[in-house]
Amino acid sequence: MIWCRFEDADGPVYGLVEDGMATAVAGNPFGGWEKSGRRIRVGELRLLPPVVPGTFFCAGLNYRAHAERAAYGGHTVPDRPEVGYRANSALTGHRSPIVRPADCDEPLVAEGELVAVIGRTLRHVTPDQARDGIFGWTIGNDVSARGWQRSDRTFWRCKNSDTFKPMGPYIVTDADPLAATTTVRVDGEVKASFPTGDMLFGPYEYISAISRYITLSPGDVLWLGTEETATVVPGQVVEITIDGIGTLTNPVTEEKLP
Amino acid sequence: MIWCRFEDADGPVYGLVEDGMATAVAGNPFGGWEKSGRRIRVGELRLLPPVVPGTFFCAGLNYRAHAERAAYGGHTVPDRPEVGYRANSALTGHRSPIVRPADCDEPLVAEGELVAVIGRTLRHVTPDQARDGIFGWTIGNDVSARGWQRSDRTFWRCKNSDTFKPMGPYIVTDADPLAATTTVRVDGEVKASFPTGDMLFGPYEYISAISRYITLSPGDVLWLGTEETATVVPGQVVEITIDGIGTLTNPVTEEKLP
Repeated sequence: MIWCRFEDADGPVYGLVEDGMATAVAGNPFGGWEKSGRRIRVGELRLLPPVVPGTFFCAGLNYRAHAERAAYGGHTVPDRPEVGYRANSALTGHRSPIVRPADCDEPLVAEGELVAVIGRTLRHVTPDQARDGIFGWTIGNDVSARGWQRSDRTFWRCKNSDTFKPMGPYIVTDADPLAATTTVRVDGEVKASFPTGDMLFGPYEYISAISRYITLSPGDVLWLGTEETATVVPGQVVEITIDGIGTLTNPVTEEKLP
Repeated sequence: MIWCRFEDADGPVYGLVEDGMATAVAGNPFGGWEKSGRRIRVGELRLLPPVVPGTFFCAGLNYRAHAERAAYGGHTVPDRPEVGYRANSALTGHRSPIVRPADCDEPLVAEGELVAVIGRTLRHVTPDQARDGIFGWTIGNDVSARGWQRSDRTFWRCKNSDTFKPMGPYIVTDADPLAATTTVRVDGEVKASFPTGDMLFGPYEYISAISRYITLSPGDVLWLGTEETATVVPGQVVEITIDGIGTLTNPVTEEKLP
């Protein structure tokens, strides 16, 4: 199944996607739901992040070359799966703009990431149980302002300014993303491409490790890190494609202060 | 007004607290609500965290002496308000146990914190507008495992293991917590006491600074940091009191693996 979430007249609703059409549902994919009968062409919808997580987990450094390049914080290549957190307030949907803050004068960095969406309550699970606990997969762009990443005490704005976390377009429940390729395009040109599954720690291992201390709940998301990145500036369009999951597209714009 | 949130037969509900009794409401304090008429003695309720935020902001180092002691990460005393994030999955309510993970063999550290609960959508606000945008105040205990805080790449488990973020008991809308005292008691004995308002950056300044880049939404919380801390071990009870807001009480227990 392919799930989307969109802005309807009465607020956000989930939709089931088939043949380019979305059928709105009452309820949500993690609990009970039923089709409302209304079908809308997906291209006409304002897609929202396909889920707003209770907790927004992020693997950070999870590919070898990216971890080796990330010398800015004195990081070393992780020897165990350790997770970080991102802010829901930074989430935005497919086709919505990534807005560079007015006082940010560097190019932004696009980081294409596979995202696991949790489907069950998971605590003290094995990697095999973690696999069964995944509801589906989507795509994230872990947009970063590297200058702020070096200067700030935390990732509060370099990775969590409004619109810095595009996610979508869909949650795909039947997919094998670990055999896929992640491709980052800027204005249609391939800027990065890497095997999605070449992670230091795979999703099931990560979830198992988190669940030793932390309960994962339906709708939580785990962003799984990136390998190669691409820079983008206002006026450009960035696309992240993961085979079998889709393409997450976002234009980059600039904040205009009043 | 004093708001609580508790586990009712059909799930979590908000309640208005008056004279030791809670009146359940339909809806929530940030949108529309009306009294359901049912009144229950507060002492008989299983209180939940008084709100589950969309985004869980945390000031971290925000009192001078605590910041000066925090040499473990090479931190310096902050010269501007920068925020971090905590995980909703770690939240727990008043009187619920703080559970020390089975493989954590050090005392835990209790950090009593004033918490601002956001009532309006805030973006690009001045400190004065931030003040008007606060719905009310509650108390947080930013429980920490210092050994893990030194060894781990992020705060993922040292500050975000399940039950490490007690919050409550209530949200108090009419209070002047910046003139209050924060007191931490362990088994009834005062272990720490400091002027709540002696922050490096006050709540209004913090919110204004965050809002330069990030939208704060109704129900979001900002934990405002701590000065003196106290250690606790399983078997003890920790209480955080902030005058005019209440007392957040939690026993400390130990995880028993099957």
